[in-house]
Amino acid sequence: MSHPYLIGVDLGGTNTVFGIVDNEGNIVCENSIKTQAYPDIHDFVEACVQCVNPLIDQIGGKQLVGGMGIGAPNANFYTGTIEEAPNLPWKGKVPLAQMLSERLGLNVVMTNDANAAAMGEMAYGAARGMRHVVVITLGTGVGSGIVIDGKLVYGSDGFAGELGHMIIDPSPTARQCGCGRRGCLETYCSARGIVRTAEELIASGRPTLLRNVSDLSALEIFKAAKQDDAMAIETFRRTGETLGAACANITTFCSPEAYIFFGGPMHSHEFIFPALIETYNRQVLPIYRNRCKFLLSELMDRNAAVLGAAALCHE
Amino acid sequence: MSHPYLIGVDLGGTNTVFGIVDNEGNIVCENSIKTQAYPDIHDFVEACVQCVNPLIDQIGGKQLVGGMGIGAPNANFYTGTIEEAPNLPWKGKVPLAQMLSERLGLNVVMTNDANAAAMGEMAYGAARGMRHVVVITLGTGVGSGIVIDGKLVYGSDGFAGELGHMIIDPSPTARQCGCGRRGCLETYCSARGIVRTAEELIASGRPTLLRNVSDLSALEIFKAAKQDDAMAIETFRRTGETLGAACANITTFCSPEAYIFFGGPMHSHEFIFPALIETYNRQVLPIYRNRCKFLLSELMDRNAAVLGAAALCHE
Repeated sequence: MSHPYLIGVDLGGTNTVFGIVDNEGNIVCENSIKTQAYPDIHDFVEACVQCVNPLIDQIGGKQLVGGMGIGAPNANFYTGTIEEAPNLPWKGKVPLAQMLSERLGLNVVMTNDANAAAMGEMAYGAARGMRHVVVITLGTGVGSGIVIDGKLVYGSDGFAGELGHMIIDPSPTARQCGCGRRGCLETYCSARGIVRTAEELIASGRPTLLRNVSDLSALEIFKAAKQDDAMAIETFRRTGETLGAACANITTFCSPEAYIFFGGPMHSHEFIFPALIETYNRQVLPIYRNRCKFLLSELMDRNAAVLGAAALCHE
Repeated sequence: MSHPYLIGVDLGGTNTVFGIVDNEGNIVCENSIKTQAYPDIHDFVEACVQCVNPLIDQIGGKQLVGGMGIGAPNANFYTGTIEEAPNLPWKGKVPLAQMLSERLGLNVVMTNDANAAAMGEMAYGAARGMRHVVVITLGTGVGSGIVIDGKLVYGSDGFAGELGHMIIDPSPTARQCGCGRRGCLETYCSARGIVRTAEELIASGRPTLLRNVSDLSALEIFKAAKQDDAMAIETFRRTGETLGAACANITTFCSPEAYIFFGGPMHSHEFIFPALIETYNRQVLPIYRNRCKFLLSELMDRNAAVLGAAALCHE
């Protein structure tokens, strides 16, 4: 790497955060703008330039920057466009990478946030030194970034790596997913999916601390599990079982060295991982048994989205 | 390609076939030995050399040969070893690639037969010009070769691409698989899996030509389907549905440009493909809908195993 800095951009529905990242994965300076304040994409690009240029000056000028990476919802790596993102203000296909590249005079690459997270783990986190990794992000949805032989898998159209929408329960009464289908991994293992599991258990009528929680969340279930609440613990055990079975299937595809888990619900990893690993090794094809690592993200306490976006420039 | 010829080797439980392949995918000469006649691997290697050297002389000498590729059961690309293959005479890990390379003075690469089939389609068959392809082979089992960005996916250990052992039915009463688990794709879509589907339908008691077939096979079911037998047609329709649902999940992984199907049961493609494509497009995540091609192998009437093995040298 000849340049000492990269720019990582976390483009979200609320804020767009710019960070300048050094080669050790430190964010040396950052700034942000409000995404929704710019309904016209040209105004947004102008605001990005006004926001990031002072940061570039601060570290000594553009000649020290190796490129800009952007993690954004519905971003297509191949075309550099954001396509029909429901939570962003711009409709249709927006060629953001090209627009920013022209205004800044930098190489700009873009992909979705889960792919960026995977590259962040490869560059600065739990996957350093690995070549075959699957990163699974648990949040509002379940995202994934798949790394094979050191490279992100983008597929024929730039949209590969949507493992949250693997159908893991093919029965017609499986849980309804936001994508319009039923039985997707996401409906069981997203933050909301975990709450649904708890709600189903609560409906059984057994005693639990969870019954009195007014606004049930993965965090509230975690708190109850820490107080030895059996139903909260069972909720995470089932989450782990489901993840373990899904990983057993994913392994038939790419046989990774490790799975790395990221996101809020993974603060409960102590309750999720034992069932996940036990289920995986029981359900996986025997040739793969006890070979794979299951790791927690090393970026959960850092700005993973900015670091991951910057790491996209490493490819 | 600077050399005009490659050597493809189809190492099977009965015969080991050597073919010399030109750049257009023609097998210009071939010969074979009986695999089981050599219980000592050193004798086998010697027999290989005696078998292949006259072929090499025939095309003008070793300097015209770019390398040797071997498709073999339980072969590991990374190590060049065959590991614990149940249908081959040698036990433990056999470093066959290295042994042959030393004796022949040629580069030798080795992988399993489904991966070789995928490379054969890329080099000489239905996947020419494509970069993202999944090849699914239906036979005694269900094998797969996954190509991402023009390269075979081997995974961290050389054993990636075992999609026949994706668990597609997680219920505890799902069909028993030879691997020791239940509900694998193979139990539904291998030649034997298709026969099991027919047997289940026959047990319903409805009239069918299949009831009087003494030794039910995918070919016999095909013959009945050609005579408009409703139960035979239903058997292949279910096979197509199952394959379509499996492909919908595989697409969330690597979003290929095409799926290519190979093997005996695919002679019934006219009865399998309509249900396969309809189910795929109904079940796949909407962003992928109607984007993917479903193709028949173009190597089914040629020596696909030898061509695929030779094509391994293209990587």
